[in-house]
Amino acid sequence: MSTGPATAPPQAPASSPAKPALRLVLGGAARLTVEIDRAAGQPLAEQISERLASLIRAGTLTQGTRLPSIRALARRAGISVHTVVEAYARLAAMGLSVSRAGSGVYVVRPAALPPSAPIPALDLAQPEGAAAAMLEGRDDMLAPGSGFLPAAWVEGAWQGGVLSRFHRRLPAAMVRAAPPQGGEAIRQQISLGLGMRGITMSAEGVLMTAGATQALDLVIQTFLAPGDTVLVEDPGYFMLFPMLARRGVRMLPVARRPDGPCLEDVEAACRRTVPKLFFLQSVLHNPTGWTASAANLHRLLRLAENHGMVLVEDDVYGDLHAGEPVRLIQLDGGASVLYVSSFTKFIGSAARIGFVASAPSRIEALLRTKISAALTGSGIEELLLLEILASGQYRRHVETLRARLSSARGLVLQRLRELGFSITGGDGGLFLWAEAPEGAGEGLARTARHRGLMLAGGSLFRPEQQPSRHFRFNVSRCIDPRVSELLRAMLAKP
Amino acid sequence: MSTGPATAPPQAPASSPAKPALRLVLGGAARLTVEIDRAAGQPLAEQISERLASLIRAGTLTQGTRLPSIRALARRAGISVHTVVEAYARLAAMGLSVSRAGSGVYVVRPAALPPSAPIPALDLAQPEGAAAAMLEGRDDMLAPGSGFLPAAWVEGAWQGGVLSRFHRRLPAAMVRAAPPQGGEAIRQQISLGLGMRGITMSAEGVLMTAGATQALDLVIQTFLAPGDTVLVEDPGYFMLFPMLARRGVRMLPVARRPDGPCLEDVEAACRRTVPKLFFLQSVLHNPTGWTASAANLHRLLRLAENHGMVLVEDDVYGDLHAGEPVRLIQLDGGASVLYVSSFTKFIGSAARIGFVASAPSRIEALLRTKISAALTGSGIEELLLLEILASGQYRRHVETLRARLSSARGLVLQRLRELGFSITGGDGGLFLWAEAPEGAGEGLARTARHRGLMLAGGSLFRPEQQPSRHFRFNVSRCIDPRVSELLRAMLAKP
Repeated sequence: MSTGPATAPPQAPASSPAKPALRLVLGGAARLTVEIDRAAGQPLAEQISERLASLIRAGTLTQGTRLPSIRALARRAGISVHTVVEAYARLAAMGLSVSRAGSGVYVVRPAALPPSAPIPALDLAQPEGAAAAMLEGRDDMLAPGSGFLPAAWVEGAWQGGVLSRFHRRLPAAMVRAAPPQGGEAIRQQISLGLGMRGITMSAEGVLMTAGATQALDLVIQTFLAPGDTVLVEDPGYFMLFPMLARRGVRMLPVARRPDGPCLEDVEAACRRTVPKLFFLQSVLHNPTGWTASAANLHRLLRLAENHGMVLVEDDVYGDLHAGEPVRLIQLDGGASVLYVSSFTKFIGSAARIGFVASAPSRIEALLRTKISAALTGSGIEELLLLEILASGQYRRHVETLRARLSSARGLVLQRLRELGFSITGGDGGLFLWAEAPEGAGEGLARTARHRGLMLAGGSLFRPEQQPSRHFRFNVSRCIDPRVSELLRAMLAKP
Repeated sequence: MSTGPATAPPQAPASSPAKPALRLVLGGAARLTVEIDRAAGQPLAEQISERLASLIRAGTLTQGTRLPSIRALARRAGISVHTVVEAYARLAAMGLSVSRAGSGVYVVRPAALPPSAPIPALDLAQPEGAAAAMLEGRDDMLAPGSGFLPAAWVEGAWQGGVLSRFHRRLPAAMVRAAPPQGGEAIRQQISLGLGMRGITMSAEGVLMTAGATQALDLVIQTFLAPGDTVLVEDPGYFMLFPMLARRGVRMLPVARRPDGPCLEDVEAACRRTVPKLFFLQSVLHNPTGWTASAANLHRLLRLAENHGMVLVEDDVYGDLHAGEPVRLIQLDGGASVLYVSSFTKFIGSAARIGFVASAPSRIEALLRTKISAALTGSGIEELLLLEILASGQYRRHVETLRARLSSARGLVLQRLRELGFSITGGDGGLFLWAEAPEGAGEGLARTARHRGLMLAGGSLFRPEQQPSRHFRFNVSRCIDPRVSELLRAMLAKP
């Protein structure tokens, strides 16, 4: 019966008797017909607006064409007026129609936009480019170098009814801005969670942030001025380096050892200059996966106190540790420590939520910076996190992650060793820090990229991107056998 | 039957026959009983965990008490095992229980946290304190000085099924990080919305941000260095001044007139120095509500081009304008203009989402800063905004807001004039900029605060908080007759 172009999707041709299609006759000389499918999962209003949009974009419905009135179309097609109203609203929101009061709805074909130069892709060998590539993921790439868990590993965070409870509470929460420090309820919950790690910290000592990155940025903007000196770990978290460089801060590297930062390096730096902050990851360090010993942290704190240096303890991966590792904040309570953490890595990448904990005077200074840099945080994300934490779902989810990572770890370790990589220790968690066999090295990451494998080369994790033969492997992304097959092929023919 | 303390809420006493309560017998010598209410809206698991928590906090259930096994409690109470599992998980998440493998669940009474100094309230006369007070709101304060719409005015943004569609799409979105520039779909939608304002801007020229504040902060961090000079409007957006001060930037004031910034001031400043940026609000300027004329903006652009100065056009309120005002970005396309906007004010304060639009080379520079300051944005908020915009609900909502504000405006204008305030022009929108009658002035905001009225005194909006006899009134918050009554009383006895 259709006299217009077939617009039903290919899997449901107009002639198929199995799927009852609905025909919208648009009228006019051409008697254009649009097929929609009542049985499809997609709401009718969306189907109608999308079919109309493609007719407009294809030029079949031309500029200035008057669409049928809402009532006429609803009556002729036997659908509700409400559905047509929504379909037309969606079309208008796409910029493809205008309604003129008392006259009707008319098709608009938007003028083609002038071509604009697309933003060039960021350099993948540089921190910003590497971060963007890891965030965006690509279906055609295997990404053993990514810092993120695969989607299927993360979903457990919001099962057990978390999302439906979030949904129920969302309308009431939407109209309330999150206070700049973060809501009382979520900060209480963070304080409880810290207590379970043996860290005594009241809710007043907690400031919510948009992930660990905003937390680090607020620390940098608040406590550092251009020309200041800080200590960083070598190797260390790669995004920290451009953040510090942007503030005009000088970085002195401290070698990272399996039991913590090299204290001789710290002492030597403190004799030569006055570092204001030292940024480090004590538990499940990124990229090595090493956890500092209690003794190392105790001595580091003594050094920091003697030299008036504040320690910025970045604890993004610690929940993956199966034991009871000691943290700086636990020893010191926040007098000389700024503790940074985040939930983003485990609860889903679409959420950006973390926090800083420290002495209230430091939190107050950070709060002022947060207001002037961001005004406040997202109440929607705070609500979601509160539901995940308070329901106990977070704890269950993290236990599952630990178990999965632990069994994957043995397998991946074995495969990498068979390929000639050497790996030192590591206490679980997401990462293995592996030294490539002789002969392989710098060029490997580049070659791998051309073969659809995103590696994280060691120089990315060094303060000035000095050469390195190490690679960071994400255990959860290395169990796919294609990863070791591709590596084997590349290592065979360098 | 209850032998333990009555723990049912006061509105449903245990003796009430009308509400069927459920009794959880906890066992032990005391045969402690907890009453829960099947008919209540609150899920059973939450009721159980909250009742148990209050028994633990009250000391009735003591440290080390073993709770009934999950199966036993479920069987005795006739509720599902799943419900008890969730209740116990919530209790554990509150830090009030631990489970020991193979042994059971035990009560923990957390050690009292050491008292910590609460963070002192920020000074309300300073920008950071004023912003925090406006965000947090207070039920015991009337806030004609607030920059936000009342909750009841905002709710329309997510009606029409927006939240249920958001909910349906959330699970798939949770596992995908938003790309640092913002997702393709939301940037396309922004580009369409700009097109409807007559602004030609492709999706490549759009960078999503966490509200206008992050947008301004990224602009400041990217294009300004300490010691640089910029132009700002006097009066102007009050949070901009501490943001610039934090970057160590010198501000030169440009007087704001009803038809736009004073061009003589701009010329004089450009003769004396080389301002890198000029921050202004062309449409429905904050705090005055004035909209610049097309002629003023055209001449301003000529000046900017001649002096190599970039114009930062902050357009947060423009959607409230009933007409078709001209914007800088519309005249210039982004060559000399950075355009900043946000949806937060209209779609609910819990969401923090806005954008910058400009030439792709500037967007690329901002993108690098965004990655190093925040890594990326919130995919959850992008999904919600996309649903609000693409469904046409945003447009309907803004039309309703305009109508409500327009009818409130006449009334409020009249009341303020009766009280002796003088008000110049204004083109609709949220704000009236009113000069207090002779004799009233600086002290009025302080006096008002003590009487439960939060005013926004004019000096807040001046670059160095110079004295001012003006006040910014939020029309939507002034229709409550108590506002003018309180003002009348204060103006009568100064």
